[in-house]
Amino acid sequence: MEQTERIEPVNRILDALLRLSAPVTTGRIADYIPELAKADPDAFGIAVVSVLGHAYEAGDSRKEFTLQSISKPFVYALAISDLGLDAVHERVGFEPSGEPFNAFSLDDQGRPANPMVNAGALLTSSLISGQSSSERFARIHASLSGFAGRVLDVDQKVFESERESGDRNRALAYLMKASGSLTREVLDVTEVYFRQCSLLVTTYDIAVMSATLANDGINPMTGVQIVDSAVARHTLAVMGSCGMYDYAGQWAVRVGMPAKSGVSGGISAVKPGQFGIGVFSPRLDDAGNSSRGVAVLTLLSEGYGLNLLQHPPRPASPIHLLKWDADVLSAGIRGDLDFVDLELIVHEVAEELATKKKSDAEVRFDLTHVTSIGEAANMMLEQLVTRLKESGFRVSIEDPSMLVKVGVGQGGLA
Amino acid sequence: MEQTERIEPVNRILDALLRLSAPVTTGRIADYIPELAKADPDAFGIAVVSVLGHAYEAGDSRKEFTLQSISKPFVYALAISDLGLDAVHERVGFEPSGEPFNAFSLDDQGRPANPMVNAGALLTSSLISGQSSSERFARIHASLSGFAGRVLDVDQKVFESERESGDRNRALAYLMKASGSLTREVLDVTEVYFRQCSLLVTTYDIAVMSATLANDGINPMTGVQIVDSAVARHTLAVMGSCGMYDYAGQWAVRVGMPAKSGVSGGISAVKPGQFGIGVFSPRLDDAGNSSRGVAVLTLLSEGYGLNLLQHPPRPASPIHLLKWDADVLSAGIRGDLDFVDLELIVHEVAEELATKKKSDAEVRFDLTHVTSIGEAANMMLEQLVTRLKESGFRVSIEDPSMLVKVGVGQGGLA
Amino acid sequence: MEQTERIEPVNRILDALLRLSAPVTTGRIADYIPELAKADPDAFGIAVVSVLGHAYEAGDSRKEFTLQSISKPFVYALAISDLGLDAVHERVGFEPSGEPFNAFSLDDQGRPANPMVNAGALLTSSLISGQSSSERFARIHASLSGFAGRVLDVDQKVFESERESGDRNRALAYLMKASGSLTREVLDVTEVYFRQCSLLVTTYDIAVMSATLANDGINPMTGVQIVDSAVARHTLAVMGSCGMYDYAGQWAVRVGMPAKSGVSGGISAVKPGQFGIGVFSPRLDDAGNSSRGVAVLTLLSEGYGLNLLQHPPRPASPIHLLKWDADVLSAGIRGDLDFVDLELIVHEVAEELATKKKSDAEVRFDLTHVTSIGEAANMMLEQLVTRLKESGFRVSIEDPSMLVKVGVGQGGLA
Amino acid sequence: MEQTERIEPVNRILDALLRLSAPVTTGRIADYIPELAKADPDAFGIAVVSVLGHAYEAGDSRKEFTLQSISKPFVYALAISDLGLDAVHERVGFEPSGEPFNAFSLDDQGRPANPMVNAGALLTSSLISGQSSSERFARIHASLSGFAGRVLDVDQKVFESERESGDRNRALAYLMKASGSLTREVLDVTEVYFRQCSLLVTTYDIAVMSATLANDGINPMTGVQIVDSAVARHTLAVMGSCGMYDYAGQWAVRVGMPAKSGVSGGISAVKPGQFGIGVFSPRLDDAGNSSRGVAVLTLLSEGYGLNLLQHPPRPASPIHLLKWDADVLSAGIRGDLDFVDLELIVHEVAEELATKKKSDAEVRFDLTHVTSIGEAANMMLEQLVTRLKESGFRVSIEDPSMLVKVGVGQGGLA
Repeated sequence: MEQTERIEPVNRILDALLRLSAPVTTGRIADYIPELAKADPDAFGIAVVSVLGHAYEAGDSRKEFTLQSISKPFVYALAISDLGLDAVHERVGFEPSGEPFNAFSLDDQGRPANPMVNAGALLTSSLISGQSSSERFARIHASLSGFAGRVLDVDQKVFESERESGDRNRALAYLMKASGSLTREVLDVTEVYFRQCSLLVTTYDIAVMSATLANDGINPMTGVQIVDSAVARHTLAVMGSCGMYDYAGQWAVRVGMPAKSGVSGGISAVKPGQFGIGVFSPRLDDAGNSSRGVAVLTLLSEGYGLNLLQHPPRPASPIHLLKWDADVLSAGIRGDLDFVDLELIVHEVAEELATKKKSDAEVRFDLTHVTSIGEAANMMLEQLVTRLKESGFRVSIEDPSMLVKVGVGQGGLA
Repeated sequence: MEQTERIEPVNRILDALLRLSAPVTTGRIADYIPELAKADPDAFGIAVVSVLGHAYEAGDSRKEFTLQSISKPFVYALAISDLGLDAVHERVGFEPSGEPFNAFSLDDQGRPANPMVNAGALLTSSLISGQSSSERFARIHASLSGFAGRVLDVDQKVFESERESGDRNRALAYLMKASGSLTREVLDVTEVYFRQCSLLVTTYDIAVMSATLANDGINPMTGVQIVDSAVARHTLAVMGSCGMYDYAGQWAVRVGMPAKSGVSGGISAVKPGQFGIGVFSPRLDDAGNSSRGVAVLTLLSEGYGLNLLQHPPRPASPIHLLKWDADVLSAGIRGDLDFVDLELIVHEVAEELATKKKSDAEVRFDLTHVTSIGEAANMMLEQLVTRLKESGFRVSIEDPSMLVKVGVGQGGLA
Repeated sequence: MEQTERIEPVNRILDALLRLSAPVTTGRIADYIPELAKADPDAFGIAVVSVLGHAYEAGDSRKEFTLQSISKPFVYALAISDLGLDAVHERVGFEPSGEPFNAFSLDDQGRPANPMVNAGALLTSSLISGQSSSERFARIHASLSGFAGRVLDVDQKVFESERESGDRNRALAYLMKASGSLTREVLDVTEVYFRQCSLLVTTYDIAVMSATLANDGINPMTGVQIVDSAVARHTLAVMGSCGMYDYAGQWAVRVGMPAKSGVSGGISAVKPGQFGIGVFSPRLDDAGNSSRGVAVLTLLSEGYGLNLLQHPPRPASPIHLLKWDADVLSAGIRGDLDFVDLELIVHEVAEELATKKKSDAEVRFDLTHVTSIGEAANMMLEQLVTRLKESGFRVSIEDPSMLVKVGVGQGGLA
Repeated sequence: MEQTERIEPVNRILDALLRLSAPVTTGRIADYIPELAKADPDAFGIAVVSVLGHAYEAGDSRKEFTLQSISKPFVYALAISDLGLDAVHERVGFEPSGEPFNAFSLDDQGRPANPMVNAGALLTSSLISGQSSSERFARIHASLSGFAGRVLDVDQKVFESERESGDRNRALAYLMKASGSLTREVLDVTEVYFRQCSLLVTTYDIAVMSATLANDGINPMTGVQIVDSAVARHTLAVMGSCGMYDYAGQWAVRVGMPAKSGVSGGISAVKPGQFGIGVFSPRLDDAGNSSRGVAVLTLLSEGYGLNLLQHPPRPASPIHLLKWDADVLSAGIRGDLDFVDLELIVHEVAEELATKKKSDAEVRFDLTHVTSIGEAANMMLEQLVTRLKESGFRVSIEDPSMLVKVGVGQGGLA
């Protein structure tokens, strides 16, 4: 991937983040699968890929490792693309379980807790459309390669090691078979699952896959739509609730980006609409997440305000101009308009009209410097226009970027 | 609160939402406390309060009911204000438990699972600073009244009913006392807790309280800072993970706003930076959340794209002007600038300079129409300026709103 | 208790058993109650009291310690005496729980698992008849003193230590109060319970108490009937299922006597119809039973075939004489007659009569050397006599000890 | 089995017991395996086989059904015969679990709770010696046929039905494979297990199999030793703790005979040293035991005092003669001598010698009418003789049945 430019300043920051997190050497490499135990404990890489397709990397970002549980959200995305959200969730729950990822429990409807625990991931994988298990794996392989923007390979040794050590997963699958949630052949299902876990990726690949979720399902490097926008959003929601094992709640407080970790030491994290992140370092903490991965993502989120619940300070006024020219009130609007911006516009325009007591004036909205309009804002704007007209004003809108969506944003309600 | 104007169009939309959700009559009124069983099952109200202090209401938005579990996040906010996040979480966990809200289980450190289950809420309440239980309740009362912007009353009958029916909570408190996580007198702790649950509020109050969390801890009606910004954000994160009982995961997918429900039928929901919402309808679904409340908030979120994970489409270009005037390249920038906007600016400016091969030019950034700059964007902008200067360009910035923060946004890293 | 003669050879065997078990120094003294932690870890005593009132002792058999959980079966015996078996078990289950003795779980009827776990013991104690808690404790005190044959004292320091450390038990009691299984005041109930646990006994006392259960509820030292025979048997059954915590199953295989251990290091064990045993040594194994206690009782049971499931080899023939004197067939019977003995008698007499073809003979049963007749055997004997008479034989029975019970043993069935 | 005589009165009692229990029509036929659902719900049979080989039967005692879980104790007996108790229990626990028979839980050593839950039974079955699964099944088949005294057949339809419905058992097996407790091929292990569950038996067969356990492992019909005496006793102990699912504790109180029930409606119950019982009626109660089976065995145990914890009243004195002839004290002893009998003999002889102050007398014990001597009694008798000799008396023993065992019963202690 030599096309990745080492563009400053982001790369420099990533280098600094690695340096700051490198002293974290707690945790242990996963060894329940013999092949995984061979990983270099000191490997450490990070990559960020933006929705515009720019990539930033540092450390061992091109070293290969196996996807493991990071495959779960991507296969889940394919499953809900294939069947729809509701059909998938007739068979698998939505809720964090408070139990270990490999727990033996089904909810009172016989479903595994959620698609991010092993049982739920096995089930999700089994739901992928396809006549045979090889066809199902072929579709998973194609989809995950689509997310990554290149054809991924299976690590044959890890796959065989998984298969040999996979009795607990077989047990989970038989349990779900017995409860009726799993309907395919158990040994086929586990085979496909072990294979999807054994796909080889780099930290850079994880960042591209994550960026595809950040970018409404469109791979920003290839421009290919891998899943649709709602699927990407639902996948991120499930990652947000259940992606970081028993650290999910703390992760929401301290990092606040939907994420999924894997036993080989990778983490995928997503800043929706902005970028995807990949991190890799094999030592795992008690919750099963990469110790350095958690450290570096916490630093990054805190340092740059990436927590989903963090919002920028109220922006400068969306009205950059409000002036009368005879009977015409010109309102120059700007910025990314949200509900509160419109509240402000509604109130200021109303006050201006009331002050001047001109009941037959024209109001001209100039949206030239508006960069986006949210759905609630769009609804408010439409209602403002309607109301002004009803009150006898003439209204005109200059919208060169055609951002106003007519009749949208009312949810069919008004 | 007579100052609330019934301003269209939002009130009209709220009316429509109530109408659409009214047919939901499933679920049962909580009756484990006799007083609660007396609620009117058909009561239904909604209120929205924006961070600018505008209020919109429909239905029974001024009917009183008791706070119950909705008190939990607000008392938690007070606790972390008093002690700090880490000290509080030495005693109570962060994680969704996958168990009922009144479950008898402590984590392996002897802590209740999180501050939103009963055990965790009892503990959190016990941590409030104060010599005596009456002092502790006085501080809780003052804080929650501050969130609501008016002095709240205790419903004495409900309080007595809670106290009489409170053996399970006493059991939880004794269990935590035995494990060492609770250090105060059990019967004092439960007393305070029953009292905080018995505070009387309206749906409108809930909306104001929620708006205070949306507004970085500042009550938008009174302008008083109740908790600081980080406390508000941490509280929202915990609501997001654990606020909707065993529906939290599904809520994240279908609604995607941090929320907390109570057994009396209320729900508090928050759109950070935008508004708070209160809903009230007493019938509860199997997960213990108001059936109509879930219905109406789902409609609202889907209808207006309020899910946290939903982001507006990539805005129009942040560069509204890029033109040469002799050796001066003027770059007119606009909108709410995020990381990706800056990427775009960096690349376009770089390309423009490269194309023109003017190595000694001046670059003038005009930020007049910029409405906000995120932390990552600020860092990128700073780095861009530095880099241009290092390359020999002269750089000037027109920043009338003084949005650029110098030296901020690097997390101390670069 | 100076009347206890140090009669050989049992005392010599008890000495030997202590010597053989003394090397067991694994385990730890219970320290969750500070007072208990002060026990001498090397204290070791054993006592056996037979249903005839003979006592055998070795080691520290007169050292005092507190009853703790050994109070549970004796208070349970009082409860079922007061209310009847069924009324007690409407509130507490019968089943081993597979969980720790202090677990927080109730069965699906809201009942604690069984009367030997803490929750069940608290409940059982609360069921004792009595208006006030002091009256209830007075009755418990009287009954347990009756089992021991002397007035037991409360160790005031241990009682206070229990009370201070008793939050988990208070939690259990509140949980049961909430579920409706406990109906008395929680703090009264725990008070009585802590007091019953703090009664001071010696190993010798435990042996007398156990012997009272072995002797159908009659204290063999005082001759006083403390509980009736069925109550004693039901108590032994519950001890058999649930008395040795999570070692109950293994105990049944390796020792096979109903038993109850306590956290202060005592064990009560019962050989029904024969003797009671007390053992005391404070170090507890992982299951919470006295390590040396388990060792010494295992040796004792294996050495002398005391396992309930062990039965002596089939005895010599119950017929010591079967001979004709003219038309009279004399059958000399002997021993403790069980079902199988009667089968043998029926068949041998039938064959003898068939062989001799004397249809009008007399059959004389001489029971002089019969020492007991079980219920099934008694039924068989009655039926044999009836059948012989129906076949035309004359029958006479010599029964100097009047062991045959007429009309008994048919369960009202035939 | 035409040799079974319908000998009164036991058959008449069995008829009466069936009549009394027939009104119990609660419960449901197991239907999780389609073939089982076809059973006649009203079928009802009982059979009793004594250790002398006499059989008594009533109702549908010759109707065939499949062994199901009743196979578990018999295969367990074979396993501990093959490997020894300790080796088996390194892999499977001893303890009642308080959980459903098909629960997914292993103890903290990775072992299933006990050999009577499905997981434990699968494991036990896997431990049977044999190179291949067919060899293992052949040995199980031979052993269970030995217990029954005839070659049992596999119900091929039920076997196939088990195999088709067996996913939960496969899941359990994979779980144990993953934990390391199961070491053989999962699909081989479940195959053997389904086959052992599908062996066809009659109620009469169950009675013979049970009588074999009652008779120290010797089949009373064939005289063949199937397992040794200790194996039979250990098997009974495990049945006693864990054989009746979540009714084991109540069973101990109300019935008190080691027993094992199966999902097809059979129950095996054992009166050690006396007889085995088989019952069959397909409707199962909530605990999974045959409703009528529990009813009829409760009646039988209560009617005839068969509870293990019930003991006959203290027998008549074991001394039928104690008289002086010059310097010779003749002591005529009788009955089944236990510890307490010897206590009595020791004390009476001592007193007699003390009273007469004859220090150089001869003591003649006449054991002609003694029918058995327990181990503790034997030890006491030996010690009595030794002590008398040490005191200067001459001692002689008339023991025509050679019941006294020299040097036995001291457990190597004295």
